[in-house]
Amino acid sequence: MRVEQWSFSLGAKPRGFHLVTDEIARKIGDFRGITTGICHIIIQHTSAGLTLNESADPDVRTDFAQIFDRLVPENEPYYVHTLEGSDDMPAHVKSSLVGASVTVPITGGRLNLGTWQGVYLCEHRNRGGSRRIVATAIGE
Amino acid sequence: MRVEQWSFSLGAKPRGFHLVTDEIARKIGDFRGITTGICHIIIQHTSAGLTLNESADPDVRTDFAQIFDRLVPENEPYYVHTLEGSDDMPAHVKSSLVGASVTVPITGGRLNLGTWQGVYLCEHRNRGGSRRIVATAIGE
Amino acid sequence: MRVEQWSFSLGAKPRGFHLVTDEIARKIGDFRGITTGICHIIIQHTSAGLTLNESADPDVRTDFAQIFDRLVPENEPYYVHTLEGSDDMPAHVKSSLVGASVTVPITGGRLNLGTWQGVYLCEHRNRGGSRRIVATAIGE
Repeated sequence: MRVEQWSFSLGAKPRGFHLVTDEIARKIGDFRGITTGICHIIIQHTSAGLTLNESADPDVRTDFAQIFDRLVPENEPYYVHTLEGSDDMPAHVKSSLVGASVTVPITGGRLNLGTWQGVYLCEHRNRGGSRRIVATAIGE
Repeated sequence: MRVEQWSFSLGAKPRGFHLVTDEIARKIGDFRGITTGICHIIIQHTSAGLTLNESADPDVRTDFAQIFDRLVPENEPYYVHTLEGSDDMPAHVKSSLVGASVTVPITGGRLNLGTWQGVYLCEHRNRGGSRRIVATAIGE
Repeated sequence: MRVEQWSFSLGAKPRGFHLVTDEIARKIGDFRGITTGICHIIIQHTSAGLTLNESADPDVRTDFAQIFDRLVPENEPYYVHTLEGSDDMPAHVKSSLVGASVTVPITGGRLNLGTWQGVYLCEHRNRGGSRRIVATAIGE
């Protein structure tokens, strides 16, 4: 049994939902030899998130953005946390709705996702910049 | 320290929220001897999810379905991902709102859930069919 | 490689979102010597939750409460699970929206959160009382 850990950044993305499975897999490589276990991946920010969803049709990610913008609208008159811009407070709530981390099984030395499953970087700020990730693999 | 992994399917369920704690526990059995650790359980699909919630009163699951159908309605005019049916795009978003996986502590060789806590399979498609699960236990 | 586990309660909080990073860190202490790995923290209840979000400005937590109360309103005429009070059914759904657990990397013997990231106890009941937590650290 071993634990391995990686810290890296993902390149800046526009506001929206972005498929980053391959970008993350390249950073992690071969899990330094771990073949069976789990991989925990977390984004160290509170106005972006990570989630698992459909990797094939980019239209899904377009609709995600529209739906989340309606679930947590900007400029509600009752917001008190407004100094960082109209996109900031909704970004915090959207981050907690999807969550800051995903955990994926490792099987045969690879992320064991479903056929249509990929990792989304959920960028909720208009200009979020690059985002820091910590990945931790545990297994044997 | 050891890691153990299981891959199995859960039987097809109608659209809605379903208590599957016992169905999953039967598949995993005695954790192959792991008594203290964590168990990560993931659904390998993007139009269904897993969450922990109240295991006693089935009325809670009825209301869950109603509330989620209102949070992410079908047939919004701005949806572009519509080819797979009116239930499909809302199913993807509902999946990310609850998440694809749960992680539960293992204590004394059993899932250490709260008294009223159970695992829900959140089936967001009208006809989702059987659903694939991967469970990974890590501990000693 | 080792696994360590803690079971403890967090003091009763009023309905709302509460920063409990330090309260949890004091209970766990030095991870009993684990310096690299993950820490899984779960709340053993179904009307409260845990999430990671911004630790600096308390206004964020005020807005969280307002937004969640609008996302899942009380007293909807179609609710059938109503016997435990008007705050109960919304509390169950809010719990699944944020989730019952968070997993955080351990690096250098500490929770490796982002600069502005903290753990929120999301108390969705008017009088939730003290809340039971199980924390499990795995690593070396």
